[in-house]
Amino acid sequence: MIPAVTVIAVGKLKEKFYLDASTEYIKRISRFCRINVIELPEKRLPEKASRAEIESALSSEAELIRSKVPTQAKIIVLAIEGGQLSSEAFAEKLENFSSRGIPAVCFVIGSSYGLDAAFKKECEKISFSPMTFPHHLARVMLLEQVYRACMLSNGSSYHK
Amino acid sequence: MIPAVTVIAVGKLKEKFYLDASTEYIKRISRFCRINVIELPEKRLPEKASRAEIESALSSEAELIRSKVPTQAKIIVLAIEGGQLSSEAFAEKLENFSSRGIPAVCFVIGSSYGLDAAFKKECEKISFSPMTFPHHLARVMLLEQVYRACMLSNGSSYHK
Repeated sequence: MIPAVTVIAVGKLKEKFYLDASTEYIKRISRFCRINVIELPEKRLPEKASRAEIESALSSEAELIRSKVPTQAKIIVLAIEGGQLSSEAFAEKLENFSSRGIPAVCFVIGSSYGLDAAFKKECEKISFSPMTFPHHLARVMLLEQVYRACMLSNGSSYHK
Repeated sequence: MIPAVTVIAVGKLKEKFYLDASTEYIKRISRFCRINVIELPEKRLPEKASRAEIESALSSEAELIRSKVPTQAKIIVLAIEGGQLSSEAFAEKLENFSSRGIPAVCFVIGSSYGLDAAFKKECEKISFSPMTFPHHLARVMLLEQVYRACMLSNGSSYHK
């Protein structure tokens, strides 16, 4: 069984095709488990923001993220430096939360500037790829993997 | 400089959002280099195809793929067992082809059953992720990385 899934994503999906893809996967996932996607506003930064400006923006984004994490949810951050795993291992990971009595998992996807370093340090990190993908596409990739995990957990066949 | 890029993909993009995403990235890439996406028909297979039926389908798909590879193009196959690289290393790889006088690169994405083993053996393989993504989404991910490579090669800034 897959636990309830929350996705907290910083930044609005702009491209219609990513929005449509995201909506479609949410619909498919909702047949298997509770799914909730929370979109948080990205802090506005000047074109050539300084490191300090970026860090301050990320820090206040992290504060907002923390306030949105459901109680008892296990937080997993998408970060390029995180551990990699196969789709099967990802599905097992989610199932294991359920069997260990963890009722919810909360994935966090940062903005185009990433995530606050201190916040990341507190959380488990997983990486989907050593490549950098736009955070909008990363959201679709995540939802697709959650849907795949639901299908695997349910013993359903699913096209590659 | 990024060489001319051909993408040979087996199977038709069905979901409108992936088709739209693919069209958008092709448009963006075409500002930097020649880009051509060739969609080949997927061999029809029965619901519960045997290993032999699948292998025979993959073998005839591979024959068709071979006939479509542009002359002088370096073939790179997307395969989960391939080597991983960062977006920057991917961009450098493409640039290096140009500087070594290789005028074109041809990416190959198999069908939902993958690619013929013998064909894969002949080609360089790269992996975008240890996770399994639907081949439709893999096509969008590839085009996005080619676009990112164009932007990196051109020294342009590009959102993550």
